[in-house]
Amino acid sequence: MTTLDEIKAPIAGHIDAFEGHFRAAMKSSVPLLDTVMRFIIRRKGKQVRPMFVFLSAGMCGGVTESTFRAASLIELLHTATLVHDDVVDDSNLRRGFFSVNALWKNKIAVLAGDYLLSRGLLLALENDEFTLLKIVSGAVREMSEGELLQIEKARRLDIAEPVYYEIIRKKTATLIASCCAAGASSAGRDRETVDRMWRFGELAGIAFQGKDDLFDFEK
Amino acid sequence: MTTLDEIKAPIAGHIDAFEGHFRAAMKSSVPLLDTVMRFIIRRKGKQVRPMFVFLSAGMCGGVTESTFRAASLIELLHTATLVHDDVVDDSNLRRGFFSVNALWKNKIAVLAGDYLLSRGLLLALENDEFTLLKIVSGAVREMSEGELLQIEKARRLDIAEPVYYEIIRKKTATLIASCCAAGASSAGRDRETVDRMWRFGELAGIAFQGKDDLFDFEK
Repeated sequence: MTTLDEIKAPIAGHIDAFEGHFRAAMKSSVPLLDTVMRFIIRRKGKQVRPMFVFLSAGMCGGVTESTFRAASLIELLHTATLVHDDVVDDSNLRRGFFSVNALWKNKIAVLAGDYLLSRGLLLALENDEFTLLKIVSGAVREMSEGELLQIEKARRLDIAEPVYYEIIRKKTATLIASCCAAGASSAGRDRETVDRMWRFGELAGIAFQGKDDLFDFEK
Repeated sequence: MTTLDEIKAPIAGHIDAFEGHFRAAMKSSVPLLDTVMRFIIRRKGKQVRPMFVFLSAGMCGGVTESTFRAASLIELLHTATLVHDDVVDDSNLRRGFFSVNALWKNKIAVLAGDYLLSRGLLLALENDEFTLLKIVSGAVREMSEGELLQIEKARRLDIAEPVYYEIIRKKTATLIASCCAAGASSAGRDRETVDRMWRFGELAGIAFQGKDDLFDFEK
């Protein structure tokens, strides 16, 4: 059993059920969009973000219907950013598959990303998940700011340590933070616990990105 | 006095005040993003969408603080779509200025668009504007679906009239519809009036796009 399987064990049933939820959330009546969506689902990753959501909810009192919506919203946003990243990086390959960009060009990738953002938004709004929306939309703003901060600073090669931490906090850690906060909130916990879970996720996200960057550096 | 000036006359003061609101809503602490935002503000168009919002509110009982937020949210979303369109069209010129894309490349344009979307979302959430959000996020989904429907159908050259109307309803008319509905809602009107104003805006939007396409055809 791998470490990832061990971590996933207590919530394996929820993660399986989540996949059906997520596929339903992405469905579209426009055939071209539906083809893109099926393609995106096939190349799914390790599902680290849904795991953070379900584990946090379980730790804070138990998984609810609201936990599934939280995981779907965050995964929709994350997928939207990946699709948009494909455009901006002009990368043709992601996780060994051809990127959406390479196959359907920039125009479709930008629109598909926007579609995913709006689907996530509607999913939350239709269920009056306003606390969840507040937790997550702050993260979206910080992620785009973090990416742009990185572009700006990368031009000069003298990034000081505090700027580095600010960049990885914004571009990576806030999304993990919102997973943990949303999980706690979906289990009915109060503002103070939600804020503490946010901080836990933020630190976990910084540790994750720091390690990832170190591996890149050693290559 | 031009026709546009005549239409604007009853709400000219509101439109002036709106510009300050809108600039404040776009401000960012990331210098690169702030430069992009200042550039976007400089090339503003005829402000057709804010006009629909303020005129609808005025007609439905009067402009409120909420009307300014509605106009800002819709203009933020509209600007985000324009910035994303610059990427996808690879157009270097828009309204006689160099496009954001040409100047700062695709990556920055996609991120700036996402940033604008999240700012609009936060502006509404921070003020508990849930009805407004529901009105507007449905429009965002339909707009991306409409664009993708157009791409799909444009490959074949046999678009039937009902498909043409479906495309322009989704890609153009729903945003005007949401301006009128959001204006009415911000003035405190009930669901029935809001729905009727939506329908009015939808028809006005279809007429606008149909006329625009006819002019293109005649070129």
